Amino acid sequence: MDAKARILPNGEAAPAAVLDSPTNPMVTPLLTDLYQYTMAYAYWKAAKHNDRAVFDLYFRRNPFGGEYTIFAGLEECIKFIANFKLNEGEISFVRQSLSGSCEDGFFDYLRELDCSEVEAYAIPEGSVVFPKVPLMRIEGPVAVVQLLETPLLNLVNFASLVATNAARHRFVAGKSKMLLEFGLRRAQGPDGAITASKYCYIGGFDATSNVAAGRLFGIPLRGTHSHAFVSSFMSPDEIIEKSLKSSDGSTNCEDFVSLVHTWLNKIQAVQWSKSSNGMFGQTNHSELAAFTSYALAFPGSFLALVDTYDVMRSGIPNFCAVALALNDLGYKAGGIRLDSGDLAYLSSEARKFFQSIEKEFRIPGFGKTNITASNDLNEETLDALNKQGHEVDAYGIGTYLVTCYSQAALGCVFKLVEINSQPRIKLSEDVTKVSIPCKKRCYRLYGKEGYPLVDILTGENEPIPKVGERILCRHPFNESKRAFVVPQKVDDLLKCYWPGTSGKPRVELPSLKETRERCIKQLEQMRPDHMRRLNPTPYKVSVSGKLYDFIHFLWLNEAPVGELQ
Amino acid sequence: MDAKARILPNGEAAPAAVLDSPTNPMVTPLLTDLYQYTMAYAYWKAAKHNDRAVFDLYFRRNPFGGEYTIFAGLEECIKFIANFKLNEGEISFVRQSLSGSCEDGFFDYLRELDCSEVEAYAIPEGSVVFPKVPLMRIEGPVAVVQLLETPLLNLVNFASLVATNAARHRFVAGKSKMLLEFGLRRAQGPDGAITASKYCYIGGFDATSNVAAGRLFGIPLRGTHSHAFVSSFMSPDEIIEKSLKSSDGSTNCEDFVSLVHTWLNKIQAVQWSKSSNGMFGQTNHSELAAFTSYALAFPGSFLALVDTYDVMRSGIPNFCAVALALNDLGYKAGGIRLDSGDLAYLSSEARKFFQSIEKEFRIPGFGKTNITASNDLNEETLDALNKQGHEVDAYGIGTYLVTCYSQAALGCVFKLVEINSQPRIKLSEDVTKVSIPCKKRCYRLYGKEGYPLVDILTGENEPIPKVGERILCRHPFNESKRAFVVPQKVDDLLKCYWPGTSGKPRVELPSLKETRERCIKQLEQMRPDHMRRLNPTPYKVSVSGKLYDFIHFLWLNEAPVGELQ
Repeated sequence: MDAKARILPNGEAAPAAVLDSPTNPMVTPLLTDLYQYTMAYAYWKAAKHNDRAVFDLYFRRNPFGGEYTIFAGLEECIKFIANFKLNEGEISFVRQSLSGSCEDGFFDYLRELDCSEVEAYAIPEGSVVFPKVPLMRIEGPVAVVQLLETPLLNLVNFASLVATNAARHRFVAGKSKMLLEFGLRRAQGPDGAITASKYCYIGGFDATSNVAAGRLFGIPLRGTHSHAFVSSFMSPDEIIEKSLKSSDGSTNCEDFVSLVHTWLNKIQAVQWSKSSNGMFGQTNHSELAAFTSYALAFPGSFLALVDTYDVMRSGIPNFCAVALALNDLGYKAGGIRLDSGDLAYLSSEARKFFQSIEKEFRIPGFGKTNITASNDLNEETLDALNKQGHEVDAYGIGTYLVTCYSQAALGCVFKLVEINSQPRIKLSEDVTKVSIPCKKRCYRLYGKEGYPLVDILTGENEPIPKVGERILCRHPFNESKRAFVVPQKVDDLLKCYWPGTSGKPRVELPSLKETRERCIKQLEQMRPDHMRRLNPTPYKVSVSGKLYDFIHFLWLNEAPVGELQ
Repeated sequence: MDAKARILPNGEAAPAAVLDSPTNPMVTPLLTDLYQYTMAYAYWKAAKHNDRAVFDLYFRRNPFGGEYTIFAGLEECIKFIANFKLNEGEISFVRQSLSGSCEDGFFDYLRELDCSEVEAYAIPEGSVVFPKVPLMRIEGPVAVVQLLETPLLNLVNFASLVATNAARHRFVAGKSKMLLEFGLRRAQGPDGAITASKYCYIGGFDATSNVAAGRLFGIPLRGTHSHAFVSSFMSPDEIIEKSLKSSDGSTNCEDFVSLVHTWLNKIQAVQWSKSSNGMFGQTNHSELAAFTSYALAFPGSFLALVDTYDVMRSGIPNFCAVALALNDLGYKAGGIRLDSGDLAYLSSEARKFFQSIEKEFRIPGFGKTNITASNDLNEETLDALNKQGHEVDAYGIGTYLVTCYSQAALGCVFKLVEINSQPRIKLSEDVTKVSIPCKKRCYRLYGKEGYPLVDILTGENEPIPKVGERILCRHPFNESKRAFVVPQKVDDLLKCYWPGTSGKPRVELPSLKETRERCIKQLEQMRPDHMRRLNPTPYKVSVSGKLYDFIHFLWLNEAPVGELQ
């Protein structure tokens, strides 16, 4: 990768806040579709490359059958824009990829190209957003803005999709549960995983298993051991170093392995005496050895995967034996993880077992030992667990979360809405695919109860909606759908994140934590009927009366008149 | 990113063929689950880290309702293994992420860690593979091999999934069609896209739109222009530079714009005279201007997107006018792209139009003008197009291909099968999740007609199946399913790609083109009933009689005996 100089794209000295490059060094000006370069050449050849264009980035439908989306990926987009510059190797590859007849002047033009004349406006990252409302509005010389199209879509599409998926999982799991993202191994490529870790955190997850994502973004990390660890041991006899200091350092247990055995015998004696639940008998030795070894390595954070052999007959008694031995030395065990079977049943049985241990051996709090569940969890299985009743405290979620299995893509598009101050419209047989022309402003209007009521798009120069003043909100394409609204609060949605030469102040990019907090807060602010899983109410997106009239004027103007025969 | 020194992991001088780092610089030893490091510490603390472990990487079910999978991702895995080394920054992050009580010696151990003692065996990349057969077998010190688990799974899972998806699309499209991968904007993150471009090419695609992937892997690039390019023009009046040299350079057309107009008038006159198909009338001026400009920039490769306003009333006549003007100057137009509407109908109508132009104006070959179709294509829509009849020559496929929309994840797993020469088994309530223990050999046996008949797994030291000699193949878990086979050819599937200290010769990694050719050839070799889309026949995967007996002995040995009450 080429080092990025700490100077502004236009060659001026760097100001205080220089933006880093995108997280993934593979995000370069070549991470775009070839046609962006062929178009750039055609624009340049027609001396049209500096025509001032306005593009909207938006999506047409909320994912996962829901009625909301989380906007994410903005920070990476702005970092990409801020550092957009082709190096010689890249220019020479573009030359080689275009037709041999392209003039040299074009490559000189590419050499000078940057985003100093581009302006980028966006809704803050982590916001709850809706179809048709521009998430970003990019203005600038048409050739440059076209080159940005594909990377911006790539950086927003999956980020927003997976953040939304995370938010939906959080909604079903409930606020009190710990949510862990475990998707690295099944994700779509290395940074399919890293991207997922980042945006699941924004969407409300608490931690990830992905060490690289933890390092890059400061996301809390979680993880203990796998089935392979458990089955790599044969028996406790192979444990050589058996001593363990107490948590306060005051005493030393010479033979922790024996202490564990003593506890296992006590537990089994109790089980035996209570008879008849089929759970006595020998536990698995290889598992006991693995748990004991793990506790010797991490006495302060012992968490055991209990389903390698048999949860209730082996995993849970073995865990409890080790946890009680640790308790003797002043350590509190972290809990168990269930990775297979009937999680509702097993978590409830485990809870009862822990409670009986608390009572039998008078270990206060043992009944509340943490239970983590994993194994192909998704929105539906979380919902089913809730309905069955369960005792799970934390969920580890992988495949379905990070690959967005139930809908693997969000359809953000990037449409030209104005060029040289002339509004442009993209027509389609399918009315949902007709674009809303003009450089626009976007507002969120709030009602009396504090909930967002409706988003409204207006022309750039229309008056700003005022609190307490009645405003007409029209459906952009359905003439009969319209409503008057008297907003109690008005949010101007698009902020300036990259001012170009406009002289406007640049809104600073917030930290990942701030973005996460915004997301969680915005989700809480929504009216509950928009958020429910079954038949949620669509949130209204509207246009002003003036913009409505203009859309339909332009539409009639551009569409050819058919002739039925 | 830290520079990788060109020395072997063990510090020796580099041999002739040093392996590059993985394509994505984010693929580092930290791209793993935290629990791999907690386990590494626990192994180290128990002085067990150098126990010799054997892990199998395999999947349990073919994706997309099919009965085959393409194995891909191997090259990146081997490059990762070859360059596996933690730098100081990484070690210090691991230290910070583990519990504070970890001993310093462990971090010294991490500092020395590499894959010099690891052996990696694999089926060649691009092979057709089946459930339960190890795609890779990794042997080495248990702590190191565990650290490799997550990155290897990440690098294989999506690569194999998307290569298989590409192969399935190729199967439906047929050999004669050009297949273009257009997925960058909707892919799961930046290298979700780059990964998809690479492995779609292996799976049988011809080209990509992704410039970065073209540069990284030498994949052919394709692309022309978008709807925004078309609507960014207002009218042909804005074209200033109107001259175009003929293809042989012998003449110069001073006013190409007028030449296009002349042709448009001729075409419309003919349409008019033939009356009554509703296709006469004015074409869209902004579209005509865009096509003309694009042709002036790329006269030798003019390809037009014809559905911005109206395919038959505007796009096609405008395209033909420009193509015929180019033809006057000795250039052959590249064709059209349809990106919406009824592709079967529109492609057939476009073909008829081209044929009528060929006939009317005596332009040999014009009727065969290339037609590319895009717009949310997938296996089902390709199949539907085939059934309806169409005239499409090339397909541009994006979202459904690169995100593997119909199944967004492959479930490869990495299971311990032996440690210190002791076979290990992973049990499960679900028999499909029980692992096949032991370090194994894997063979593909071919029948009389040249088709692969069955894959068989045997113990490491069992005799190799011989051509012409009868061998018993047993289902690993179903005792009644078994068959004798007399192979006509035997392939030893697992090759040594990273010999560690074994002294075995290392199989060189083939080029991307060679891998692609292997894939295409292997797909052609399969018996057709395994490949069909509807109810394909499962390919048989078996174990030797000896391995069968051993699996079931070990299973009974490890499983606890229940007690019904």
